[in-house]
This record gives sequence, C-alpha cells and structure tokens, in this order.
Amino acid sequence: MTAQGTAKDALFAHDAGTAALDQVMMRLHWDQETVMPRGAADQRAEEIAALETVIHARRMDPRLADWLAEAEPADAAEAARIRWIAEDHGRAVRLPADLAAELARMSSLGQGRWVEARKAEDVAGFLPVLERIVALQREAGAAMAAGGDAYDALLAGYEPDITAAEIAEIFGRMRPRLVDLKDRVLASGRQVAELKGPFDTAAQLALTARVAQRFGYDMDHGRIDLAVHPFSSGSGADVRITTRVDEADPLGCLYSTIHETGHAAYEQHVDPAYRLTRLGKGVSMGVHESQSRIYENQLGRGRAFCGWLFGEMQTEFGDIGVPDADAFYAAVNRVHRGFIRTESDELHYNLHIMMRFDLERALIAGDLAVGDLEAAWNDRFEADFGVPVPAPSKGMLQDVHWSAGLFGYFPTYSLGNVYAGCLFAAMKADLPGLEGELASGDLGPATAWLAEKVQRHGASKRPRTVIEEATGTGVTEGPLLDYLEAKFGALYGV
Amino acid sequence: MTAQGTAKDALFAHDAGTAALDQVMMRLHWDQETVMPRGAADQRAEEIAALETVIHARRMDPRLADWLAEAEPADAAEAARIRWIAEDHGRAVRLPADLAAELARMSSLGQGRWVEARKAEDVAGFLPVLERIVALQREAGAAMAAGGDAYDALLAGYEPDITAAEIAEIFGRMRPRLVDLKDRVLASGRQVAELKGPFDTAAQLALTARVAQRFGYDMDHGRIDLAVHPFSSGSGADVRITTRVDEADPLGCLYSTIHETGHAAYEQHVDPAYRLTRLGKGVSMGVHESQSRIYENQLGRGRAFCGWLFGEMQTEFGDIGVPDADAFYAAVNRVHRGFIRTESDELHYNLHIMMRFDLERALIAGDLAVGDLEAAWNDRFEADFGVPVPAPSKGMLQDVHWSAGLFGYFPTYSLGNVYAGCLFAAMKADLPGLEGELASGDLGPATAWLAEKVQRHGASKRPRTVIEEATGTGVTEGPLLDYLEAKFGALYGV
Repeated sequence: MTAQGTAKDALFAHDAGTAALDQVMMRLHWDQETVMPRGAADQRAEEIAALETVIHARRMDPRLADWLAEAEPADAAEAARIRWIAEDHGRAVRLPADLAAELARMSSLGQGRWVEARKAEDVAGFLPVLERIVALQREAGAAMAAGGDAYDALLAGYEPDITAAEIAEIFGRMRPRLVDLKDRVLASGRQVAELKGPFDTAAQLALTARVAQRFGYDMDHGRIDLAVHPFSSGSGADVRITTRVDEADPLGCLYSTIHETGHAAYEQHVDPAYRLTRLGKGVSMGVHESQSRIYENQLGRGRAFCGWLFGEMQTEFGDIGVPDADAFYAAVNRVHRGFIRTESDELHYNLHIMMRFDLERALIAGDLAVGDLEAAWNDRFEADFGVPVPAPSKGMLQDVHWSAGLFGYFPTYSLGNVYAGCLFAAMKADLPGLEGELASGDLGPATAWLAEKVQRHGASKRPRTVIEEATGTGVTEGPLLDYLEAKFGALYGV
Repeated sequence: MTAQGTAKDALFAHDAGTAALDQVMMRLHWDQETVMPRGAADQRAEEIAALETVIHARRMDPRLADWLAEAEPADAAEAARIRWIAEDHGRAVRLPADLAAELARMSSLGQGRWVEARKAEDVAGFLPVLERIVALQREAGAAMAAGGDAYDALLAGYEPDITAAEIAEIFGRMRPRLVDLKDRVLASGRQVAELKGPFDTAAQLALTARVAQRFGYDMDHGRIDLAVHPFSSGSGADVRITTRVDEADPLGCLYSTIHETGHAAYEQHVDPAYRLTRLGKGVSMGVHESQSRIYENQLGRGRAFCGWLFGEMQTEFGDIGVPDADAFYAAVNRVHRGFIRTESDELHYNLHIMMRFDLERALIAGDLAVGDLEAAWNDRFEADFGVPVPAPSKGMLQDVHWSAGLFGYFPTYSLGNVYAGCLFAAMKADLPGLEGELASGDLGPATAWLAEKVQRHGASKRPRTVIEEATGTGVTEGPLLDYLEAKFGALYGV
C-alpha cells in the first residue's frame, strides 16, 4: 500500500491519465486534418511534440516497474490491463531515448520528403531519407526485440501475438488461390458498366451520413467532416470520422465512410467500463481492420445491401447509369487492374499487401538494400499484377507508411481481411435472416453481432482470442478465400 | 551547466513545453464549445483534467527552483520570461496540492450548480456551493499571498502588479462622474430608434467576417465559428474566435465579433520570437480587455466607423429601420437601463463591474457573508441603477465567474476600459488622420498602432509598463471619462 492506496490503484490511476492524454492527442490530429487554420502547421507540430513527450515520459515512468511488480489483478480484465501496461512500458524503456527522438524526427521529416518526392517522381531524392529510416527501424526493432526478431518486434506494435513467419504462412496459402481467381476474372473479358453522374456533393454527404447511421454510427458521440484522407479518430464517447466527396464518383465517399464507420463503431462500442483505460480501445490494427473491412466489403458490398442501396441511390440521384440492382452490385465490385492500393478491389488489395510485407521484411532483415527497392517493387508488381509500373508515384512512392516509419503495419490490413472472413462466416451461421435484413437496409442484427462478439471487448482480450471466441474456430484464411471465390466467381461467371 | 546545457537552457526548454501544452488546452476548450459531439462532455472533462494535472505538475516541478536560481538573463525579454516563470512557479507551490484539487473540483461542480440555479431562480440551492467556493478562494488567496492580502493574491492571477486598493481608488474617482453622466443621459428623455430586421443570418456572418478582417483578424491563423458564448482562444499561429447570430439583432453578432477580434489580434500580433514561450501571449486580463474594448467601443462604436458601417449594413440588408448614419450611430450607442452586464452600454458597464468588485472583495475579506450576498447585490443594484432586481437570474446569478471560482477577475474588465481610454487618447494624438480613415472603414493605421505599441510585446513587459510606454503617461481614469462624457454628452445633448 502506498499513501494513496495499493500499487494497483496507483498503476491504474496512472494508466487512466495516459489514456486520457492519448485521447487529447487524437483531438489534435483530428483538428489538424479538418479545421486547423492553414498557417498553424508549424505551431501544431510543436504542440503535438510537447504532448508526445509527456505521453512517452509517462510510458517510461520508472514507478511503473514497481507498481507492475506488486499489482494483483482481481479478474481477467484487470490482468489484461496490467499486461498491456507492462508491454507498453517494456517497449518504451527498451528503446533508447536518443533513438526514440531520432525516430520521431525522421518520421516527421520523412513524410515531408515523401510528399515532395511523390510529386516530383523523384525516387533518388527520397532514398537517402528512406535509408536512414530503415536503419533506425532496424535498430528500434532490434532494441525492442531484446534478442528476438526485429521485424516481429515492429509488427507487435500494431498486431501483438503473431509472428511474421505465421503471417507469411497464411499469406503463402492465400496467394495461389487469389492469383488464380484474379487471373480467371480478368480473363473472363466480362465488361462491367460504371455509374454515370454527376452526383451532387451535398446529396452524397446526406446519403452517406444516413448510411453511416444505419451501420450504427452514433452521431451523439461522433461527427462526420471532410478531410483530404478519410480516417477515424478517438475512442469511447468521442469518435469522429472524415470523408471526401468526388462529384463523379459517389462510391468513393460512400464506401470510405462505411469503412471508417467500421473503425468508429468498434471504438464506440467498447464496454464503457473500459473507457479511458488501456482496455478502452480497439485491441490491434488487424482486429480494427477486420471491423472496417467487414462493414465495407462483406456487408456493404454484398448483393443484399447493394439492392437496398441501389434504391436509395435512385431516389437521391435519379438515373445513375446502371439499369438495375444487379448491375449496380457489379459496378460496386468491379475488378480492374490498377496501380494504387487504396483504389484496388477486394482481390487485388491483398496482393498489394503481400508484396509490401515481403519487401519491408527483406528491408528490415537486411536482405534487400534500400537502393534496390524500386527494382524489387517494379519486378514484383509486374509479376503479380501483369502490368509494368509507369511511374514511382504509382509504385513504391504511393504509400505514406514507410516514410512515416510504419514498418510492420502493412500486413495487418490483410490480416484484418482474414479475420473479417472468419467473422463473416460465423455471423452468417448465427444469423439465418441476415440476407433478408441486409436487403432491406437493416444492418442492426449484423452490427449488433459484431458489437457483442468483438467490439465491446476492446483490449480486454488478446487479438487472437477475440477472433477465436467470436468465431469458435482458429484464425484461417479459408473463409475469406471461399467468400471471394464464391462472390467473384458468380459475378464474373468463372 | 547541466548535461543538456545551462540552467537557463533547461528552464526555457521546460517553459516552451508548458507553453505548448497550454495551447493544447486551448484547442480542447475551443473544440468543446464548437464541434464536440454532445455525448462527449463527461469524457472531455476527464481529458481536460488529465492535461491540467500535467500542466500543474510542470509548474510545480522542483527542478524549476534550481534552474531559476542559476539562470542568467541575457536581455530584458529573458529577464521578463524568467520572472514570469518564477511567479507562476511560486503561486503553484504555495497552493497546497489538496487545496488545488478541491478548487478544481468545486469550480467544475459550481458551474453545473450555477446553470441549474439560474434556470430555477434558486439562490438558496446555490448558496451552499458558493459558500464552499468562497471559503476555498479565501484559503487559496491567503496561501498564495504568503502573509499579504488574500484578494490581492487572487487578483494577481489575472492582473499582476496592481492592488485592490489601487483599483478601488481609480473606481472611486470614476464612480461619481459615471453616475452623474448616466443620470443626465437617462433624464434627457431622448428616444433612440432601434434597428428593424429581420437580418439574414448568413448575411450577418458574411458581413461580420469582413469586418473582423478589416480589424486585422488573420484568417490564415484563425477561424470564426458559432458558439453559445463568443470567445477568443489560443495564441500565436492559431487564434480562433466564435460568435453568435440573432436574426433580430445584427449588432450583437457584429460587436461581439469586433470585441473578440481585439482579443485575437492581440494574440496574433505578439512578436513571433516569443511564440510558445511564457512571453507569447497577452500580458494580463486588463491589457487584453483594453484591446477588445478599444476595438469594440472607441473604434467600432465611434461615429466615424459607424458611418462606414451604416453603408455596409444598407448594402447587405436594405432598409434597416434607421434613416441615416447619425441615427445608426445613436442606435449602436443607445443607453438603457438593464440588468445584464454583458448587454449593458458603455456607461452602465463599469457600474456593473464596480458593484461586483466591491461585493467580491467583501466576500473574500469576510466582511460580507455569502448568505447576505443577494440582499447586498439587490440593494446596491437599485441604488446604482435605479430599478429593483426582478429575479436572481437578472441579479446575482447572472454571471458564471463566482461559480467557477474566478474571484479577482471582474475588476480587470473596467481596468481594461481605463487602459483603453488612455490608449485611445494617445492614438488620436499620434494619428491625426484617424477620423478620416475610420470613416472610410480603414482600420489599418489604428490597429497597426495598437500592434506596435501594445500587442507585439506580448508578456515581455509588465502590464502597467506596456500601457505607460504606449501612452507616455501613467494609468489614469481621466481619458476614459473625458471620452465618455464627450461622446454621450453629444449623443444625448447633456
């Protein structure tokens, strides 16, 4: 017992403060991307750096080690909370202070250089900073791994409890079936009509807000704003999403919002008892992505919901250039060769991810030199996608992740797809009326199932446990591939 | 020298972090009043409390005492910075931790109770919490005063370097002249036409934004949003203002925005070299209010500018119910008996403040019991304003300040008016073309004069020094009273 109570009391009070400051950081980032005056960027960087320094110092707080040694959990949730605090603390203290500062500095610098390089199609100008970032990431991974694998240690920052080797096995089994399906679809020669607009932006935003609320987005504890890149931000009682509108393409606004609604609903549905604690947020990037993907793809791009949405689109916009719900469904799910990950369909998306995963693993392992990255990217892309990369902005310069030092992040996207495949199979088994509900635009039972099985747990269970308990099976790529083969096989008659 | 450099380096780095976190707090408050989802209030309170705890701990940091003892200023600005840091630190450490926590708790609780009490006209229900707040404020004042006067110590949190006795002397000299002028104006029987609308809210906001920019508000480093209470928030590169719109009354939106523009311009014009340091903000509440008041009253409500504004109003709204610029000027400056401080004219405003100053001083001194406050308020109001208070919401429950524990704040409003009077006299002497410029809607020379003489200094000079150097004279109430007597004497023919 300390003067204030037990070690556990002190530990949890400290954690609650850190969780609240994490939320403050979310507000700053949201503000920066939505409403910040344009001349405030430099000052905002200082504000964020000051808060980041405070939060980092809290995670390093030497008192944590003593409290952690003494804290006795009363139940499984408390045990989970103590374990997360210990893991965060361990990762923080294993990272030398000067390395942490240099990582932060280079992440900020790197993103700026990346923006310039992408604009100028200038790989050579970007390589020196990328070289430095990769070196720092290798060093950081090695420090946090404490004898283990450096890439695994980086990966654990986004998806704990899984190794790169395990992911490589899953991806290895996915790849041949995906490539085969994609090749058959593209070889089918079937042409898919595209939507024809223009689509009034105000009407798009109104429809999108209605759809988000159908997917369970709670506007009393959130809001929807415009931003250059759609994102979800915050946890608990304040979870905001952003979207973007293109008058020629209503599907971009709609589906990016449904995707962000999946992320946001996860945060909004975490058990309020966990709010402002280490348990009060999504448990991992992979599980987070499983929610955004199942909202967007299995539910939002499914035939049943597309039938309802086609009617809404006609009511909102009149003639949209496709004659019926089947044609609309085909347009929503059009498979096409393309260079950009964020614009790719459900089939090509995972090939994008696998490629990045292999390349960044090789970079961190030292098996691929930064100077050889562009050639490696372009060779692999042409092999997987069947077309040569025409320019770096459509190739290795397209994503922000590496410039921001986010090594280990990419595979969680496809892991999320795999989790979503498992969850959707289990959901369908549990909800026999699902198709009819979706066809009438009723997402209630589906999103309630996810809230109950996944979202409410927050970080109180480990990522894999959440998926295993929700599905009653282990994590496997089978359901995702079965779903993709059935869906796109039918759509393209292959 | 420490490992990182001199004590001064360490001190200033620490101060820069604190200043940046102060700005983060500003963002949270802005967000709360403008865009926060309505269900996020409880969580936001926790976020703010966590950040406040961090900032308070920084001000208490025991290393500050060592650094302060060793730091050698290189120039006057550094000396000022070190002195402010020392003062903030001194006030923080003299306040016992449990008292600080209780003050924060009661301030939050008190505001909630005040909202309920004002709505229910329930003084009795509010008195217990006010009693507790007054007791805590007395205790806090005594602790910070360290043997000096408790009220002076509270006052110093808003306006350093002046005592309540000095303010009482100034107010004592102002009061008879103000009362006499107000009585003569009301006895004149002159009727003033009021504006007739409706005034389209979008047009009001567009005109208001144009006017704010004429007053020098920089939209690249700020923005204007709607909120229940108009306010200005932030320093340096991110200074936001809010406004409110009433379709029946365009003057409320216009003049509250001009007022907030004065506050915001002060913050925007502080020398960028002081940004994110203890010097990078307005030096005191009184000097701050001098800027908002001179923008709003001496400039914005002056005959010259009203002539230009009348033309803009006609262009924007057509017939506004008054025939010419003189009648518009009279409407803008209509003197009327009223109960509410924030709605009062330039004459009655200071009487409101003097009354509150006397009452809160007596409360803190123990010369007035909280249980006797309502009677004291009502007696004094009827004596000063000539009408009895009809209900507590129009009397002692009208202001948030006491419920929030802001004792010592009220007098800075009238002190700001006094400063504004001194500054306007000096400005007129320095700018012989001022009337013509204002008549053409050109605020440039006037606001540039204020930026040069007052605003750019931030907190690098003490409050009184700023005013004395700007005016070349001491701080006296004479110029303000001369201005009011000339203006309202002419308007009402008295």
